[in-house]
Amino acid sequence: MDKITLSIGTGGEEMTHFLEETVFPVLEQSISGDAAIVGRTAFTIDSFVADPPFFPGGSIGTLAVSGTVNDLVAAGARPAALALSLILEEGLDTDVVRRVLEDVRRTSKLARVKVVTGDTKVVQRGAADKIFITTSGIGEKLLEFSAPVPGDAVIVTGDIARHGAAMLLASKKFDLEAQLTSDCEPLYWLPEVLQPFQAQLRWMRDPTRGGVGTVLQEFCREFSLGVRLFQEQVPIIPEVTGVCELLGIEPLHLASEGRMVIVISPDKAHELLELLKPFAPNSSIIGEVVNDHKTLTKVVDGYETFVPPLTGEILPRIC
Amino acid sequence: MDKITLSIGTGGEEMTHFLEETVFPVLEQSISGDAAIVGRTAFTIDSFVADPPFFPGGSIGTLAVSGTVNDLVAAGARPAALALSLILEEGLDTDVVRRVLEDVRRTSKLARVKVVTGDTKVVQRGAADKIFITTSGIGEKLLEFSAPVPGDAVIVTGDIARHGAAMLLASKKFDLEAQLTSDCEPLYWLPEVLQPFQAQLRWMRDPTRGGVGTVLQEFCREFSLGVRLFQEQVPIIPEVTGVCELLGIEPLHLASEGRMVIVISPDKAHELLELLKPFAPNSSIIGEVVNDHKTLTKVVDGYETFVPPLTGEILPRIC
Repeated sequence: MDKITLSIGTGGEEMTHFLEETVFPVLEQSISGDAAIVGRTAFTIDSFVADPPFFPGGSIGTLAVSGTVNDLVAAGARPAALALSLILEEGLDTDVVRRVLEDVRRTSKLARVKVVTGDTKVVQRGAADKIFITTSGIGEKLLEFSAPVPGDAVIVTGDIARHGAAMLLASKKFDLEAQLTSDCEPLYWLPEVLQPFQAQLRWMRDPTRGGVGTVLQEFCREFSLGVRLFQEQVPIIPEVTGVCELLGIEPLHLASEGRMVIVISPDKAHELLELLKPFAPNSSIIGEVVNDHKTLTKVVDGYETFVPPLTGEILPRIC
Repeated sequence: MDKITLSIGTGGEEMTHFLEETVFPVLEQSISGDAAIVGRTAFTIDSFVADPPFFPGGSIGTLAVSGTVNDLVAAGARPAALALSLILEEGLDTDVVRRVLEDVRRTSKLARVKVVTGDTKVVQRGAADKIFITTSGIGEKLLEFSAPVPGDAVIVTGDIARHGAAMLLASKKFDLEAQLTSDCEPLYWLPEVLQPFQAQLRWMRDPTRGGVGTVLQEFCREFSLGVRLFQEQVPIIPEVTGVCELLGIEPLHLASEGRMVIVISPDKAHELLELLKPFAPNSSIIGEVVNDHKTLTKVVDGYETFVPPLTGEILPRIC
């Protein structure tokens, strides 16, 4: 690959190739795209380039805080502090910055975490598109995970793919209309809910870029296990299903920005589900860990099919 | 201010106004542009948008690692881990990314710190200028500082303004030629050298955007004290003086990316200087903390004048 392509940015197969062929060999190490654990500190970073920066249900500011908080939570950590760096385009309305920062304040207040350090750079008109935000977060590791085994249950904490579908509509690249709001929110309450289940907790990931499908394919690769999803149990609102059917997109490939995929021992799955409901009423057991194949499948009307990996450029700037 | 201007990005007066009028009121808090201390953890973030991304003496990759390491060091911390986020422009030569990451590897190896987590976003052609990097760093706080008092000595760990002058030339906006290499490097060795001087150590800052002048003006504002610099004692190489004279720029306003400004009790200043020399041979005592004015002055040929604050757009994309 000689040139950087948009498909590298979607979080699918091309991103994996880019990391494995370009980034890791040069750095002489592999690097987690999720939070790393340094001592007892979880540490994460993400850049946000969402286009448009404002969308139904939030903005690039809501996304930046939610994404970073959720990355820390996925690592089993309680968020302790955020760092926020802005890259602004010359000529941008200062009011855009103000509105984005209002969402940063609102979302970080909700998540009970403070922005403690920051930076601002300005580039010439045309050298960036309005506003990019990079957030880093640190947190205290609270939860431990034990190795997943066949039979474990896969839970998602709400309806999936809503952020990705909302950004598809907000980008105005398609002549579609639907009442659709991003699911973007910080899952700051989750570590406390999960604490009593530590001995049964296997794995957690927020299904952002690449969606539930891609994070579960990463799970399969990491542990040499398979996952079988039951389509009827995967919560998807009709508006999202509609957009996906019209555009021929697999909803398992569309991002959520306020959901967590949790793998837990099956004997505790229903108990956890009940404790999740007050915070996340549409939580659902969507599948199981299996040993008979080492990849992701879904069962639709009794038929099991492989879920293909994400390729190409669905939505380069959803987050 | 209705529109974002390049002058906001220079680190001078306009940036201060932007922060105080737009960022802090909306966030309902002020935020340090340097490292924050959370528990015993120093935490910092900076975006790098250097144009051109390669310059004599380094690249945006060298800068990103050095800048973050030096921010942690300035907070009195030993760097523990880095997080690195890339924003790439579609169509960029992958080789540019490779060369930048080689500099990231080389510089982080030199500084004995690891990149532990990361992210990559790709935006459409024209939505960013080649490559932007945001680095965040965490470190363990080692050094304590005590309040500065009049009489304290001001030390700089080498010749100043070289990075800013090198970027002026590399930008090719001026018809100037000079042999000039950026001073960009990580000061990873500094916390250990300073550890025996803890009781006498007052304040430290890496003079990046805005230069030695701007960080010392911030010192004056923070502590309601003044600083008197002695121009003959400020190390500047002739090539930098030449560029500054030709362009009418105050070298105190030009960035260094591998220097530290240290305020220390005067009775320990010469002893520290001797210990700095093996690592930083051009270290120099450049001034003193005073009480008779609350701002920054410089003494040139026996005459003392105020150093004006940095305003306008000297160099929006030096780092």
